[in-house]
Amino acid sequence: MQARTEFRLIDRLRRLGAGTGVALGIGDDAALLEPSAGSHLVAATDTLVAGVHFPDRTRAEDLGYKALAVNLSDLAAMGARPRWALLALTLPEANEPWLDEFADGWQELAAETGVSLVGGDLTQGPLTITVEVLGEVPAGQALRRAGARPGDRIAVTGTLGAAALALRHLEAGETPAPPLLECLNRPRPRLAAGRALRGLASACIDVSDGLAADLSHLVEASAVGARIDLARLPLAEPLRGLGDEGVELALSGGDDYELCFSYEPALGDAVAAALAATETPVTEIGEITAEAGIAWRTAGGERFEPKATGYGHFEG
Amino acid sequence: MQARTEFRLIDRLRRLGAGTGVALGIGDDAALLEPSAGSHLVAATDTLVAGVHFPDRTRAEDLGYKALAVNLSDLAAMGARPRWALLALTLPEANEPWLDEFADGWQELAAETGVSLVGGDLTQGPLTITVEVLGEVPAGQALRRAGARPGDRIAVTGTLGAAALALRHLEAGETPAPPLLECLNRPRPRLAAGRALRGLASACIDVSDGLAADLSHLVEASAVGARIDLARLPLAEPLRGLGDEGVELALSGGDDYELCFSYEPALGDAVAAALAATETPVTEIGEITAEAGIAWRTAGGERFEPKATGYGHFEG
Repeated sequence: MQARTEFRLIDRLRRLGAGTGVALGIGDDAALLEPSAGSHLVAATDTLVAGVHFPDRTRAEDLGYKALAVNLSDLAAMGARPRWALLALTLPEANEPWLDEFADGWQELAAETGVSLVGGDLTQGPLTITVEVLGEVPAGQALRRAGARPGDRIAVTGTLGAAALALRHLEAGETPAPPLLECLNRPRPRLAAGRALRGLASACIDVSDGLAADLSHLVEASAVGARIDLARLPLAEPLRGLGDEGVELALSGGDDYELCFSYEPALGDAVAAALAATETPVTEIGEITAEAGIAWRTAGGERFEPKATGYGHFEG
Repeated sequence: MQARTEFRLIDRLRRLGAGTGVALGIGDDAALLEPSAGSHLVAATDTLVAGVHFPDRTRAEDLGYKALAVNLSDLAAMGARPRWALLALTLPEANEPWLDEFADGWQELAAETGVSLVGGDLTQGPLTITVEVLGEVPAGQALRRAGARPGDRIAVTGTLGAAALALRHLEAGETPAPPLLECLNRPRPRLAAGRALRGLASACIDVSDGLAADLSHLVEASAVGARIDLARLPLAEPLRGLGDEGVELALSGGDDYELCFSYEPALGDAVAAALAATETPVTEIGEITAEAGIAWRTAGGERFEPKATGYGHFEG
């Protein structure tokens, strides 16, 4: 039977389906899921296209991990608990070893974060990975981009720019040091931090397109502005000797998957304690202002204009 | 700003988002949805790749309609009520007129079926459309592939083979008659029929890969077999003069998006009445048997072996 290979591949993916709240998983026309009472369902989707979102030679294992990670990062930014995922995988050919590695990378993160693969679609065509994730958050407690108010502090988790530096090395034909490459290929979604910020953050977004672009989305959704102190930016260590170039990478490089959020000054200690409890590094970088736009200030108090404001998928 | 075009495109899609049960739609990191108490969530995803699932010259309006339709067909097969959708669209270039037409075709079906677009991802690359649909069904009432029992009758809604014939014409460089082309480009998901079959059908599947392949899935999931009377197959009208070729198209062509289901003989009148109430044509075509496999019988009682058993994405 001609479709036998397809069924073997699907069988491999079926093993990623163990989990709770699944009345019916992979293998029927659709999955049947049992959402928790009193929760809002949180749904997001992200696509990775070969040659656009990752270099063609990226390992399948890293792709499996990252395709899930970038989606979970969206749930983290909402303060949600991830539960289920669907995977739409378009492959140039039926490559079982590739799929094995992809599944291993996926499962590494899925097992740790409690995500069950409950369905998907396997098609032939140019390598494209679309994941949709479903999570839950107690009704009324989700973090949103809207909600920041003038006077709120702005903070970001972790460090910025390492993934962008790794990508720059790859694009120049160089091999990044393993820890740097890990930042690009194995971003850790800030799920625990997102949940810890429920009831504390006034607004939140994940940094996927670069801090400059993503903070813009947050202040626009909140109808406010921001003033950022560049001297306080948590640059990833390898960027610290690079001067303005390091700052540009941190602002515009993208692929960080950290959380950028705002909070009332009075809640500063509670925020610090909540994030410390989840072992999440955090740095205060500025303040929400009433005036629209973002004012980036250098250590000397001068204005700074980022050259690029993040990755535009359809830029000219 | 380089990403301005992308935002314009997203704004166009945002207009597809009106609907109920949406606490937060397009524009944040994820959507927030309000599932109904007592319901199971029903989730499915399907991808259409240019040149694989549709001819490259297919109109954007038809693609918008069909990308949603093939996903809703999966919900129909579960007896579910559709509610929300996410759209991951990979486009070769930022083509606003194309997206306008795509959105118009989508909305035609979405408005009629009550589906709100609540999120998605817009990326650049080879034309690929991945839709994920979310629906609801009262807990315990979903139709499944498993559940058919020996002696159950087998029936199929509508007619078979018209879409496959239209595709064959297109591939031969001919222009199919408009009603025939409509069957390929504008399949109508059998949502009302699926819901009407709750509590009546013992098993159900949608016919997307061709009756031979999809009925195989149903009998395998149910651990039974089937005997089908080919003389009773509801061939689409243009196939009726084609002899064995018409039967092959009906069995193996795919893209029909009808429902194939089984039911206890005692429920025959109830099934007929339920489907008549939804104005769904239905034809009994055979019976579930205890022996594995499908026996296809001609009018003369001879065995018939379909040449192909449906579309395999990775065949060859």
